Amino acid sequence: MNHPVIVLVEPQLAENIGMVARAMANFGLSELRLVAPRNGWPKKGAHSAASGATHILDGAKLYDTVRDAIADLHYVFATTARERGQMKRVFGPEPAMAEARRRIGEGQGVGILFGRERTGLENDEVSLADAIVTFPVDPRFSSLNLAQAVLLMAYEWQRHATGGTLPFGGREALPASRETLISFFDYIEGELDAVSHFPEDKRPVMVRNMRDIFHRLALTEQDVRTLRGAIRALAEGRRLRNR
Amino acid sequence: MNHPVIVLVEPQLAENIGMVARAMANFGLSELRLVAPRNGWPKKGAHSAASGATHILDGAKLYDTVRDAIADLHYVFATTARERGQMKRVFGPEPAMAEARRRIGEGQGVGILFGRERTGLENDEVSLADAIVTFPVDPRFSSLNLAQAVLLMAYEWQRHATGGTLPFGGREALPASRETLISFFDYIEGELDAVSHFPEDKRPVMVRNMRDIFHRLALTEQDVRTLRGAIRALAEGRRLRNR
Repeated sequence: MNHPVIVLVEPQLAENIGMVARAMANFGLSELRLVAPRNGWPKKGAHSAASGATHILDGAKLYDTVRDAIADLHYVFATTARERGQMKRVFGPEPAMAEARRRIGEGQGVGILFGRERTGLENDEVSLADAIVTFPVDPRFSSLNLAQAVLLMAYEWQRHATGGTLPFGGREALPASRETLISFFDYIEGELDAVSHFPEDKRPVMVRNMRDIFHRLALTEQDVRTLRGAIRALAEGRRLRNR
Repeated sequence: MNHPVIVLVEPQLAENIGMVARAMANFGLSELRLVAPRNGWPKKGAHSAASGATHILDGAKLYDTVRDAIADLHYVFATTARERGQMKRVFGPEPAMAEARRRIGEGQGVGILFGRERTGLENDEVSLADAIVTFPVDPRFSSLNLAQAVLLMAYEWQRHATGGTLPFGGREALPASRETLISFFDYIEGELDAVSHFPEDKRPVMVRNMRDIFHRLALTEQDVRTLRGAIRALAEGRRLRNR
């Protein structure tokens, strides 16, 4: 096991289980365990809600009790939206998955328990866990559904496991060389001089202000070509009209 | 505006819009803008999917175009799952919401664009944004739905806006005083001596090992009382049986 196991306790709705699988697959989790799903398993509708994450549903393991489902694990988190009066560490999703990462790195099996849609985990089930995870929700509206809770944990797992690597990055281009940029300044200032844009006494200040604008843009070589082309088009267009 | 505005571009499914509202409400977002929802607005089914976040749906504002929907904002993120070949900064959700937090703190209006369920944002719509946000998904399975994407952004917003404050914390109790703990050691070692548990030559090592176990537990005063009671019950039960 090189990532946390997701354990759903008596999940009821097929769509929720499918959305859980979808959430897991997006963030690199694959091991799903179901404890006594209400009205049996498999459930009609779970696969369509999984939106392609069918390998997770097909590989889901069934258990009769939480105790059985976590027997081979070394550290278990229980997710809960409310205080349980149990003397356990309480984690947010991010430090919880940092802890999971550390333990999995040492070879421990780590699981996360999620309770029933309506009533969550029972206190006796929470008491089988090492620590509690809860979410930094707005206290005025705290109503995460099952798949949303799994999504947030899976997301935080992926951030810790991969450092939050994004599927693509920004296009990095070098800034234009200072030679290109200064030549661009000369060009635009020359064209503006040609149409007497600058009042003579204010020219130095206006030129500096305009250069500041272009400096702030952090222009690339391509950017300079793009802008130079647009300015040339304006200047040439004017010359053509003025003929 | 003291938090980011969520802008859905041509959303289609009532359930998705409802789940978006639910995701927002959990993490303290409230301003929802809809650009030309497919098949009109309001939509049947959105309110039941919002699970109580109806104030967000009822307050949602309608726009004909993205341009209108973002006109009053100062900084706009476009969410996208794929590279667009545009020279924009690309953020993950967490640094994006750090940036949003900074800008909102300066009085800027910040928005986040989310595209159509099937096809996302058009390139021309992305070109209206200052920066791109994408998610650290597993490249082998990248299929976040609309409400999942909003949930992750809302979650990261809340983490930055509130420092990730959880609705409840761990129960902090002071460790037992050293006096309580050493008295507990004396008690348990005395009871074990009374039943000749320790071979004489190994007693010092075994006592140290057992004390180490109890030290690792970081027992509280209540914990010591609980364990002392259990040990007394075992010892007394034995004495009663032995009468």
